[in-house]
Amino acid sequence: MKTDDFFHEAPRFPRGFRCAATLCGLKEEGQDLSLFASEVECAAAAVFTRNQVPGAPVVLGRELVRRGRLQAVVVNSRVANVGTGPRGIEDARRMGVAAARELGIDPSLVLMSSTGVIGVPLPIEKIEKGVSGLAAALQDDPVVGARGIMTTDTHPKALSLSVERDDERGGPVITLVGKGSGMIAPHMATMLVYIFTDAAVSGAALDAILRRTADRTFNMLSVDTDTSTSDTCAILANGLAGPVDPDAFEDALHRACVRMTEMLARDGEGATRLLRIVVRGAADQVDARTVARSLAESPLVKTMVYGGDPNVGRILMAVGKCFGSRVAADRIGARLSGVAVLERGLRTAFDEGAVRELLLTDPVELEVDLGVGPSEARAWGCDLSPGYIEENAAYYSS
Amino acid sequence: MKTDDFFHEAPRFPRGFRCAATLCGLKEEGQDLSLFASEVECAAAAVFTRNQVPGAPVVLGRELVRRGRLQAVVVNSRVANVGTGPRGIEDARRMGVAAARELGIDPSLVLMSSTGVIGVPLPIEKIEKGVSGLAAALQDDPVVGARGIMTTDTHPKALSLSVERDDERGGPVITLVGKGSGMIAPHMATMLVYIFTDAAVSGAALDAILRRTADRTFNMLSVDTDTSTSDTCAILANGLAGPVDPDAFEDALHRACVRMTEMLARDGEGATRLLRIVVRGAADQVDARTVARSLAESPLVKTMVYGGDPNVGRILMAVGKCFGSRVAADRIGARLSGVAVLERGLRTAFDEGAVRELLLTDPVELEVDLGVGPSEARAWGCDLSPGYIEENAAYYSS
Repeated sequence: MKTDDFFHEAPRFPRGFRCAATLCGLKEEGQDLSLFASEVECAAAAVFTRNQVPGAPVVLGRELVRRGRLQAVVVNSRVANVGTGPRGIEDARRMGVAAARELGIDPSLVLMSSTGVIGVPLPIEKIEKGVSGLAAALQDDPVVGARGIMTTDTHPKALSLSVERDDERGGPVITLVGKGSGMIAPHMATMLVYIFTDAAVSGAALDAILRRTADRTFNMLSVDTDTSTSDTCAILANGLAGPVDPDAFEDALHRACVRMTEMLARDGEGATRLLRIVVRGAADQVDARTVARSLAESPLVKTMVYGGDPNVGRILMAVGKCFGSRVAADRIGARLSGVAVLERGLRTAFDEGAVRELLLTDPVELEVDLGVGPSEARAWGCDLSPGYIEENAAYYSS
Repeated sequence: MKTDDFFHEAPRFPRGFRCAATLCGLKEEGQDLSLFASEVECAAAAVFTRNQVPGAPVVLGRELVRRGRLQAVVVNSRVANVGTGPRGIEDARRMGVAAARELGIDPSLVLMSSTGVIGVPLPIEKIEKGVSGLAAALQDDPVVGARGIMTTDTHPKALSLSVERDDERGGPVITLVGKGSGMIAPHMATMLVYIFTDAAVSGAALDAILRRTADRTFNMLSVDTDTSTSDTCAILANGLAGPVDPDAFEDALHRACVRMTEMLARDGEGATRLLRIVVRGAADQVDARTVARSLAESPLVKTMVYGGDPNVGRILMAVGKCFGSRVAADRIGARLSGVAVLERGLRTAFDEGAVRELLLTDPVELEVDLGVGPSEARAWGCDLSPGYIEENAAYYSS
């Protein structure tokens, strides 16, 4: 089954990929360790956090993907293995070696990730024990693997789509498995998202496509402006479906990443609604992205959405605080879920009750036209609710 | 009465300054219009918001202070007169003319400010009526004027101090009146703060001193990262106390601005605690300021303080996300209210219960040492509580 936009109603893996998850004892319940594996070696690429205090798996991951070949990904939740010094590097290496041994492949083909609390040593013995036996548990549902990497996510995140329309049996498939709901403001990388495809694409091509796509999707997502130390987005292409039209592949990947971005934003910590931002009429791409991000990140825009309160002057504020961007106060226009609320920098005579209803309806669409140029960018965010504070005032101790 | 650090126990005006406040009908209760005036013309300087959608009073204020002479300030709360087009400019002008007429002085000597909701026309007739009669109501308590400019502030903010120790009768005094609790991230300007002094200082000297001081105090304050469209910090020096030692004056002004900055941070919307940040060991001033701001603005650091939860890995995250700054992950040290919690990038074996207590005690002091250079900077913020969201989810309709 697939929908008109080629998305599958229930996510499934491309041929040759499987996963398993277990509870190895880092969390009290649920799953805390996932293994994703391909039957055969894959071309691969990845982008990582730009945070200057990267996790040990990120430090090693940068080295690993340089060869452009991967076959498996092993991920634990609950402990991030960040701020753990040389011991953290050693622990991350052991985690990869354990997964490689379990799968009977070379350790250079296993990417490691860890997500959770920063500054706490990785309980590596528990992880090594947990990895043992996972090969026999590998199965076909990507949601199982998505469950093992959740932290404060309220639901597992996986999706798949076909690259071409007529592919009921043979065409290539792209599957994304992701997590992330707080400390999300990827900036040139992303949270944890693993992308699996059976299309045959070279490592170099994957790298270029992944960077372009992440830049337009995950890198324009902000839940809370805080850029994680563990952000990782990796793509593995095992080629089992044969060659693919490059444009169709990139287009499908882009649509899949937009959808995963929206899943992550909507499940942002405490979030009740997805906020989609489009900025048009910017002088250039940098300005369009800066203003879109400013709107997605402004606490006062986010609380306006949460409260359903059409205090649209805050849109002017969030545009105007982009000091380095070309902004003309008297040209700014804005629409909230289709209703014009600002024209030429002035509040329109909109129906407040109607806009209030729209603000309370998921998703909320905010389009801003700067009226000074040809460039456009999109960003994704969510509202800011007391739930965000409740979760983060007690995350470590919970 | 004054304390050892020259602050007066109850704020008072320097000689020659007085103020009045009234309810002109913008708010339902309290005061919404304040007038501050000197008996004689003053040397003056001001810094304003860098937001590119500045309020009409900011647009006019920039012109007004260019001459370096002012004698009065008229301020209304509840409506910001921002996003109001040519009509807003005309309304702001009328507000200044009304105050000038009331005081019998030239309109070029009156600075106007407005604070409140953006995008709504200023009810100028109400303000003109309200100004009428204020000259007769001028009195000596700066707290009266502070009351008229409050928006979501929980208390009026005014303070005064003597420039020199032995000044019980004759020495110059500096008085600050301010407001601001949300949309506070001044960046090269500040919220509304008016500074009055009877020291004799030239307009050019005032301008230089004010810029240096604001840069080290108000510009390093962030309640919510949202830079207001109305930020204004003006200083009026009427000279009635005669000449002053320039270094003593700047030092006193700096201490006064630190204290006002801390009053504003502690009264940030929903805030329960003041957060004082010091960053040391940075490669240069820009890095020191960037990292200090990142720590003050991080939602995850702010919720850590609110929750009293010693999840100190978030400090590493907030340092590391300063992509452009020189950071060495294995050199970062941090102290929370005096207790070492990070050393060489690793969590120390600190007493969690003790640190939890310190996080729950106002103020919270966070010192970070980057260990890569000689530079130091301070920033101020507050915790992030559900109260911030409650206030801003319904500010406009309230």
